Amino acid sequence: MTQVFDAPDEFAETALQGFCAANADRVRAVAHGAVRAAPGARGKVALLVGGGSGHYPAFLGYVGTGFADAAVAGDVFASPSTAWIYRVARAANRGGGVILGFGNYAGDVLNFGSAAEQLRAEGIDARILAVTDDVASAKADERTKRRGVAGDLPVFKIVGAAAEAGLDMDAVMTVAAKVNGATVSFGVAFDGCTLPGQGTPLFTVDKGQVGMGLGIHGEPGISTKPMMPAVELARTLLEPLLAERPAGHDGRVAVILNGLGRTKYEELFVLWHHLTGMLADAGLTVVEPEVGEFVTSLDMAGCSLTLTWLDDELEGYWRAPADAPAFRKGTVARPLNAEAAETEIEAEAEIAPGSPESQEAGRRVAALIGHVANALADAEEELGRIDAQAGDGDHGQGMARGSAAAAAAAGKAVQAGAGAGTVLSLAGDAWADRAGGTSGALWGVALRAWGQALGDGEKPSAATVARGARAAHDAIVRLGGAKVGDKTLVDSLVPFVEVLNEQVAAGESLGVAWAAAAARSTEAADATAQLTPKLGRARPLAERSLGHPDAGAISLALCARVVGANLSE
Amino acid sequence: MTQVFDAPDEFAETALQGFCAANADRVRAVAHGAVRAAPGARGKVALLVGGGSGHYPAFLGYVGTGFADAAVAGDVFASPSTAWIYRVARAANRGGGVILGFGNYAGDVLNFGSAAEQLRAEGIDARILAVTDDVASAKADERTKRRGVAGDLPVFKIVGAAAEAGLDMDAVMTVAAKVNGATVSFGVAFDGCTLPGQGTPLFTVDKGQVGMGLGIHGEPGISTKPMMPAVELARTLLEPLLAERPAGHDGRVAVILNGLGRTKYEELFVLWHHLTGMLADAGLTVVEPEVGEFVTSLDMAGCSLTLTWLDDELEGYWRAPADAPAFRKGTVARPLNAEAAETEIEAEAEIAPGSPESQEAGRRVAALIGHVANALADAEEELGRIDAQAGDGDHGQGMARGSAAAAAAAGKAVQAGAGAGTVLSLAGDAWADRAGGTSGALWGVALRAWGQALGDGEKPSAATVARGARAAHDAIVRLGGAKVGDKTLVDSLVPFVEVLNEQVAAGESLGVAWAAAAARSTEAADATAQLTPKLGRARPLAERSLGHPDAGAISLALCARVVGANLSE
Repeated sequence: MTQVFDAPDEFAETALQGFCAANADRVRAVAHGAVRAAPGARGKVALLVGGGSGHYPAFLGYVGTGFADAAVAGDVFASPSTAWIYRVARAANRGGGVILGFGNYAGDVLNFGSAAEQLRAEGIDARILAVTDDVASAKADERTKRRGVAGDLPVFKIVGAAAEAGLDMDAVMTVAAKVNGATVSFGVAFDGCTLPGQGTPLFTVDKGQVGMGLGIHGEPGISTKPMMPAVELARTLLEPLLAERPAGHDGRVAVILNGLGRTKYEELFVLWHHLTGMLADAGLTVVEPEVGEFVTSLDMAGCSLTLTWLDDELEGYWRAPADAPAFRKGTVARPLNAEAAETEIEAEAEIAPGSPESQEAGRRVAALIGHVANALADAEEELGRIDAQAGDGDHGQGMARGSAAAAAAAGKAVQAGAGAGTVLSLAGDAWADRAGGTSGALWGVALRAWGQALGDGEKPSAATVARGARAAHDAIVRLGGAKVGDKTLVDSLVPFVEVLNEQVAAGESLGVAWAAAAARSTEAADATAQLTPKLGRARPLAERSLGHPDAGAISLALCARVVGANLSE
Repeated sequence: MTQVFDAPDEFAETALQGFCAANADRVRAVAHGAVRAAPGARGKVALLVGGGSGHYPAFLGYVGTGFADAAVAGDVFASPSTAWIYRVARAANRGGGVILGFGNYAGDVLNFGSAAEQLRAEGIDARILAVTDDVASAKADERTKRRGVAGDLPVFKIVGAAAEAGLDMDAVMTVAAKVNGATVSFGVAFDGCTLPGQGTPLFTVDKGQVGMGLGIHGEPGISTKPMMPAVELARTLLEPLLAERPAGHDGRVAVILNGLGRTKYEELFVLWHHLTGMLADAGLTVVEPEVGEFVTSLDMAGCSLTLTWLDDELEGYWRAPADAPAFRKGTVARPLNAEAAETEIEAEAEIAPGSPESQEAGRRVAALIGHVANALADAEEELGRIDAQAGDGDHGQGMARGSAAAAAAAGKAVQAGAGAGTVLSLAGDAWADRAGGTSGALWGVALRAWGQALGDGEKPSAATVARGARAAHDAIVRLGGAKVGDKTLVDSLVPFVEVLNEQVAAGESLGVAWAAAAARSTEAADATAQLTPKLGRARPLAERSLGHPDAGAISLALCARVVGANLSE
């Protein structure tokens, strides 16, 4: 289990600071991430990599010449927020655009995708690269559904080398698509890992058993088998990969044998001894293999094998020198008088004052957010408990943290004279930033969309508020892709928005309409909760994290009720 | 626990082969170890490092330019045998002599010391360097009693750099003494590790507790405390080291924060975040810190902090470039057309034929060794069980393996026409080579000494055999340093030798004398076994491994009885 931490929710952030301090000669700390101390050439395509923490050397250990330009670190096993990614990507940009690389998990897809949109809106050429190497997570003809595991290493290494070589964005992305398509991994687990501050493992594997294809966050595998000798284990790791050998391929492969944390070096070397023979028997030529820890999962016991089917181009980039804290290859002359990276100074956004009516409405909005934050703080434990039945139990924490930050940001905006729209938008940004994860991102875009609908001019009418609710709904559906019945917050959001709009259209006051909408929303949330089977730990985290099934619906209904109870007109 | 292995007793050897295969561009495999693929300059001082397996990156991961010239790998947590060390050292020698570096444990002291003697006897300037950095294992005024832990990294790195710089042997040894004296470590453990094939851990730490100063094989620490936040843990690690700051030192330190296996990178970075502030507050200037895994202990949970108090000379060697599989620093141009290392071809030693009488005696000696090997194979499990009460439970395995190899070597010697003395000597060499560990080394020197007493000329008389027994005893005491009452094999060896000599001097036949001696030896062994308290896991492995208390005495008495029963005159 994870033993060394202070407050569990500061673990990832403190680890990031420690990493940057230990590698001060190689990286420069930025908020929620790190960039190279000696930036790459001006105009080069930048590679930003990231995801949840707990996987070191992924992703911070990859920052360096010939590899990534920057890394962004979320909380443990949680996607970094859109805002965090956006900011680190801006710091990484050398003028040639930024590739946002991550493993293919729902929360990451959502946040990295959203950050890319924001960057493109500012004229930065941002592309996304979701690594999909885990053959156990979907069949070969559903390649885009596969999770990203230790294939992160060769994919990012090769893309980083292509970018370092000076290829333009389209050319680097062509390499990226090729190497991701040529990379396959298969993993086994002997035991689960334990999050900082948790007394029990996130998941377990029965003693004496091997979880075949189990994911690095405990996502379900394809089967369980009794523990076997190393020679059989080697064969078990290799076979599913050989089955995907591209037709006519000449057999050159980069090979990574990766330990997940508790399976140690000598054990990996024992496996490697067997694998060398088996790879040769299969007619493969191994190019610069790596045996060690590259994508870990806290103290999880297990390992994975990765093959990248090489051609001349990929082989060249795989062999190219690299110099990152956790990965070195060949000889890279360390820049001695490196151009210092520009310090990213985020100017506080100027707040344009709202109209007096809208300022007054803004004060009420801020007060309502304060009530919501109080209610969510009270409900944190209960929401966590509910979420733990089907998810990873962090929903209460995320909601409490996000709403508290939103309330603080709203208060600050009110002080600066903001109108209702800006108050709500900035509250949303703060929520997403501080809550992290998928639901934080969803609440962030929802509040921002709602705020934009309110504006900072006229006093918001009931009709405006109802339109705002619809805009919030649309933003969530656009970003999250869920629909009613998927057991996400959409299940209680949709009835809320529909009833609110119906009642307002029928001439009811905002207070009455809101109360009716909140009641319907609560009914829907309760129904969702009852429909949701006790899924235990068997459900993939990727699926679990998408809006936190039932817990997300429940917390949304709770917020709706709290606001309704405090809406005094 | 260790999960990946085939036959447990092949684990270390297979891991070594896998390591060499994975790093074929950097190292060349030799029997029981690895040397640099591109050897250092001719005439340079060579650094051989080693010890038991299970500590990777120590020691194999240190082989490379600017660091070690070679490493020798024993079985898991067991010293390599004298013969293994001797052979790898010869392969490492570049003509400038060899430093044999190891952590200060009884078995290693014995085997590396013995190998150094053998090398010097051949005119190779061999020196020993026992790292003694663990402040928890003895007080500062008993520095030479301290165990070696993660201080291996800076000590070997700095010595390796000095050797690479071309210093002569005396100058490198001066640096070695200085850096070992300037290096201090303190470690904590959260949980024990499990040997390959074992169902239970070698030792444990109570849940929620921290073993302070616990050794990397479970040697007892100085106290147990409840688990604490990371910031307190950082202080706990640092304070005992600050207490040993040399008077007037300017505060420049190399710092290593080392994970023992299951305590992962992010946890170490959390600690490092706190340590940076504390080190600065203490007025220390950190020079190129290392945070990661450098000396592990299979899947043990815990970590250690190491400081090396630098001066200009040590700082220069610490900063010097190095390029080893598990440790790189600065930029080392990889030799492209490296002079290939000479292949070490050990010519089979020529066997001079013995006299016909001695050949006949040699056949009987070989047959007796065969009986001993059979008996020890039968007793393997029981001896392991007895040893596990006070030791690490591998005594039965070592005895079975050693005697089987001895029997095979004796048979081969007989085929080649060897006399009794040579048969017994070669059997001893094979025993030490294959059994490994301390008791293997002791049995090896004993049989060799006995064989030299028998010679290859005259038919051995009862008096010659009795003199041989005394020579064997003297060799064991000289090498192991134990005396009667220390609960080692000496407890049953001494009465055997005394009774045998008394009875032979009194005119008894060898058969009668031997039977009486074996009976007294058995009584002594039983007494030792009954006197030995159930020590559980609390006893230091260093102490435990010295002749395997009671198990060693019992197995010696068993061998004496088996020989007695088959002595037909």
